[in-house]
Amino acid sequence: MGVIDDMKLFMEPRSVAIIGASRSTSNDGFFNSLECLRELQYPGGIYPINPSTDEILGLTAYPSVTQAPDGIDLAMITVPRHAVLPAVRECLEKGIRAMIVVTQGFADADETGKALQDELLRVTRAAGARVLGPNTMGVFNAYSRFSSAFVSLVKPDRKLPSGFIGQSGFATYLGLLTRPLGVPWIGAKGIDVGNACDVDQADALEYLAADPETKVIALHLEGVKDGRRFVEVASRASRVKPVLAVKVGTTECGARAVASHTGSIVGQDQVYDAVMRQAGIIRVADLEELEDLTKAFATLPPLKGKRIAVLTPVGGLGVMAADACGYHGLEMASFTPATMERLTALFPEWMSFGNPLDVWPAAFSVSYPQVFHMMGEAVLEDPNVDGVMCVVYSALIGYSFFEPLEEINDLVSRYNKPITAYVYGPRCQDGASKLEEPGKIAAYPSPVRAVRALGALWKYQLLQQRSVISNQLSAISF
Amino acid sequence: MGVIDDMKLFMEPRSVAIIGASRSTSNDGFFNSLECLRELQYPGGIYPINPSTDEILGLTAYPSVTQAPDGIDLAMITVPRHAVLPAVRECLEKGIRAMIVVTQGFADADETGKALQDELLRVTRAAGARVLGPNTMGVFNAYSRFSSAFVSLVKPDRKLPSGFIGQSGFATYLGLLTRPLGVPWIGAKGIDVGNACDVDQADALEYLAADPETKVIALHLEGVKDGRRFVEVASRASRVKPVLAVKVGTTECGARAVASHTGSIVGQDQVYDAVMRQAGIIRVADLEELEDLTKAFATLPPLKGKRIAVLTPVGGLGVMAADACGYHGLEMASFTPATMERLTALFPEWMSFGNPLDVWPAAFSVSYPQVFHMMGEAVLEDPNVDGVMCVVYSALIGYSFFEPLEEINDLVSRYNKPITAYVYGPRCQDGASKLEEPGKIAAYPSPVRAVRALGALWKYQLLQQRSVISNQLSAISF
Repeated sequence: MGVIDDMKLFMEPRSVAIIGASRSTSNDGFFNSLECLRELQYPGGIYPINPSTDEILGLTAYPSVTQAPDGIDLAMITVPRHAVLPAVRECLEKGIRAMIVVTQGFADADETGKALQDELLRVTRAAGARVLGPNTMGVFNAYSRFSSAFVSLVKPDRKLPSGFIGQSGFATYLGLLTRPLGVPWIGAKGIDVGNACDVDQADALEYLAADPETKVIALHLEGVKDGRRFVEVASRASRVKPVLAVKVGTTECGARAVASHTGSIVGQDQVYDAVMRQAGIIRVADLEELEDLTKAFATLPPLKGKRIAVLTPVGGLGVMAADACGYHGLEMASFTPATMERLTALFPEWMSFGNPLDVWPAAFSVSYPQVFHMMGEAVLEDPNVDGVMCVVYSALIGYSFFEPLEEINDLVSRYNKPITAYVYGPRCQDGASKLEEPGKIAAYPSPVRAVRALGALWKYQLLQQRSVISNQLSAISF
Repeated sequence: MGVIDDMKLFMEPRSVAIIGASRSTSNDGFFNSLECLRELQYPGGIYPINPSTDEILGLTAYPSVTQAPDGIDLAMITVPRHAVLPAVRECLEKGIRAMIVVTQGFADADETGKALQDELLRVTRAAGARVLGPNTMGVFNAYSRFSSAFVSLVKPDRKLPSGFIGQSGFATYLGLLTRPLGVPWIGAKGIDVGNACDVDQADALEYLAADPETKVIALHLEGVKDGRRFVEVASRASRVKPVLAVKVGTTECGARAVASHTGSIVGQDQVYDAVMRQAGIIRVADLEELEDLTKAFATLPPLKGKRIAVLTPVGGLGVMAADACGYHGLEMASFTPATMERLTALFPEWMSFGNPLDVWPAAFSVSYPQVFHMMGEAVLEDPNVDGVMCVVYSALIGYSFFEPLEEINDLVSRYNKPITAYVYGPRCQDGASKLEEPGKIAAYPSPVRAVRALGALWKYQLLQQRSVISNQLSAISF
């Protein structure tokens, strides 16, 4: 079996044993993986292992995994650290080939923990089995409705076609739920490599790169152990879909914090920078940018050129957007004469206009949303425009008058150019959700972030062109 | 009368004439300044001027301002541009000394507009009156319950003690309402200088610097005409309260957009950078940072040193916070031996811990909020800790178990050190609002932004020390 088949045991298990399954189900659904699996409506077999009871939540509990039925795909191990190795040995005896060791206190803790982790790896390698962890929340897969998390997750109704690879417990699953504006998307697949004693980022990348349900891969990196393999796998992955990464531990403060967190040795920041560039990874500054760009890649069509049109009710916000285009490698589109003619008909005659398009002064003849819609059509049909950023003021008090939400959604459905929106005002949350509902536009809480998302699409386009060229070069060179 | 008294006519008028008051009150409260003033419960006299009716919303309307009662403090002029100068002449005749010209189409439009603006300035200067605008939304003052805006604003129930100076219509008032996380604060005072033919940023700064209700001043700058006076006023202002500024039009794209927006000539970015540094202004990158830092300065006590403690349920987010400390000129605090002893008692014995404090592993003995509270007390009482950043996961499904919201609010009320929070999870909005409700903590949607806010407090502390030193130097030098 190859890496991808191994990873499927973790991500799409047909059955799971929970070693250390808790009898306590009182904490509002916390700390009980069983309840979380029930909430997700996981369709596979669940085998709780607990020597002090013979039933948990209506499921038969077994005193040891050796006494559970055969053919279990995956074991989740949550017992205290001194009991982990005995449990692993029982799993191997039972023929289980994949184990998630949730328990903390290994290389992340002390010398005893390091020794335990080495032994864990030795034992499982010898048996040809794979371990995820220790010190991990494990995996989450909205498609197979499986999660090893012991905290209740939002039901996976709104799946972003994205895969997340992290190194830090909760952050893995919940980081991508932070999004403060728009529809509360959930990243569809998540893998927390924890201390990464065996399964590492490269394995996870390999799986997600080949996964047809994943359109974009987001990485949270503290450290990488096998740099060569990581670059090799990432280079292949980034040719088929965008790979984004935030690297933490980049300052001295952060590096010290990482050492005590997962026991990783943090390499020089510049080294990581070079490695990521070489691998075609789009490096981001922080978690917020990671979320922003994941949403953009998961929901928007490609940006085929770098010429952007900005539509705004407020001149000053258009200026900010224009600045952001400059910072993010984009250009403000120059409209064709035909487009200028269409627009001229909409503006008062004394008004000079351009790009950014200050829609407001034109809104005295017909309604603001109507003008917005007509201008949107004009710029989206302009061959000089590759993508559009809209500024939307959302108060939902003067809906019919001021908020072109339905009009924007109509434009998005008719043109295959990426559109992002900066939504502001007292009801920005509702306005953004309404825009994101059909899943074809990405809304952001600042003009800079709405433009940055388009900039990332363009960066990926350039990376793709580069790999096409380098493929052509390698095809002709020998 | 000096500048401050002049500005009070705009910001705290006892009565206002609305020249061009609309009879139409059907558009959901939009486009009617009268309705907006009613909604704000403005207590002063309101005199609508409209030759086609003798009553609007129960108020007597006058055909011309010359026929309205005497002693009017301020006139708002919203008639088409060709009618502006005649209206201004009537105001001057009536003895009105302050006018807001809302109308667009002056230096922001074409040559005719430029000539009209020059004439407007000449006429008012000759009469010793002041003009705000043209091309402006005017002012907003939650304290005097006055606004010249023609869009309905959220009622000023939650006032941030902040003043905003902008150059762009809606952005002026509504930009600071964008905040996607926490309590929907409203900036208490706003001044949109528009084309700034007369009243400019320096006048507005002078007023806000002297205003006891304003704790922090936020500037949105496209261009400044009288640089020398601006630096002089800003230098004085920044000694008494923090002055933040975002400068737009900093790229070529943006500069071109500014020229067509307010007709300002945008200076070289480096020049602005030097000017701001000299004036003690804290320069920010974008609107989002401007809002973030305004909230921090308006709600938090000063940060007296740069040593930060981070409390988190997730190690990886602590690492991100530690990185951010490195980027924003802060240090991770080293706890005293006494604090370490208090903390040791809370952690499992195998667990090594430090700063960032990964609270989670200690939460198996007592509840998470209780452990969080005890750790919070320990670090806030540590003389080596100047400020605290908390990571809070908010799902509000396992409230009692997982979310130390009440505990954090208790800590905030008892210690005079600044605390910021990064709130995430499916209910981050509610969690953040609950934390911000008492008005003493600032919540943010990313670890980097929560740390950046503390970094800005420290930057201001350094600026203050610098001015104390430079004051001492100038006191001893002659």
